[in-house]
Amino acid sequence: MEVSLQAALEALADPIRRQIVRELADVPDWTRPCGTFTHLPVAKSTLSHHFTVLRNVGLLEQRDEGARRLNRLRRPEFDARFPGLLPLVLAEEHPKSSEHPKR
Amino acid sequence: MEVSLQAALEALADPIRRQIVRELADVPDWTRPCGTFTHLPVAKSTLSHHFTVLRNVGLLEQRDEGARRLNRLRRPEFDARFPGLLPLVLAEEHPKSSEHPKR
Repeated sequence: MEVSLQAALEALADPIRRQIVRELADVPDWTRPCGTFTHLPVAKSTLSHHFTVLRNVGLLEQRDEGARRLNRLRRPEFDARFPGLLPLVLAEEHPKSSEHPKR
Repeated sequence: MEVSLQAALEALADPIRRQIVRELADVPDWTRPCGTFTHLPVAKSTLSHHFTVLRNVGLLEQRDEGARRLNRLRRPEFDARFPGLLPLVLAEEHPKSSEHPKR
C-alpha cells in the first residue's frame, strides 16, 4: 500500500488525530486499546472514524484481543515513507483548544 | 509570527498549494509573479486565496513590482520552523488529478 502525501497530510491535519498519535508514541506497542481514548473531546463515533483514518494512512496497526482493540503506532514504517513528518507531530506542544478546527 | 503545525499541515494538505510551492522552488527568488500560475486548474479567485494561505503560514514572501506581485519561497525560514516538511512536498511526484480533493 503506497500512501499518498495528500492522504498523510490530511490525516495529520486534525489535532485529535495528532493527539492519538502522540499518546500511542508514549506507550509500548499493543498496550493501548481504543477504549482508553474516551478522554478526548469528541463523540465515540468520531473517535472511531479518527482511528480508521489513521489506520488507512498507515499510521496504525490494530488487533483484537477479546473485547479490546489494541493499537500499534507504525512509526518505523511511516518514518520510512515520510521522513520527518512524524517527528514534527511528536514534538508538537499540546495545541490550544482554540486551534481545534470547528466541526 | 509563530505558525502552528496545524496551520502548516492545513496549508500543505492541498495539492494546488503544494504545486505552487514546488514551482517556486524551481526558480530563483523574486522571478515568478502570481500572474504566471494561471495554468493551474483553479479559478483566479481560488488561486489568489491559495497565495494568501501560503503567505499566512510563512511559506511565501511577496512584493509588488509595478503591476506584478513577485514571490519568494521562504524555504530556509520554513525549514527551520518545520524541519523535514518542505522536502516531503518538493520530493512529491506530481499528484494524479484523481487525488485532488473535491471542492
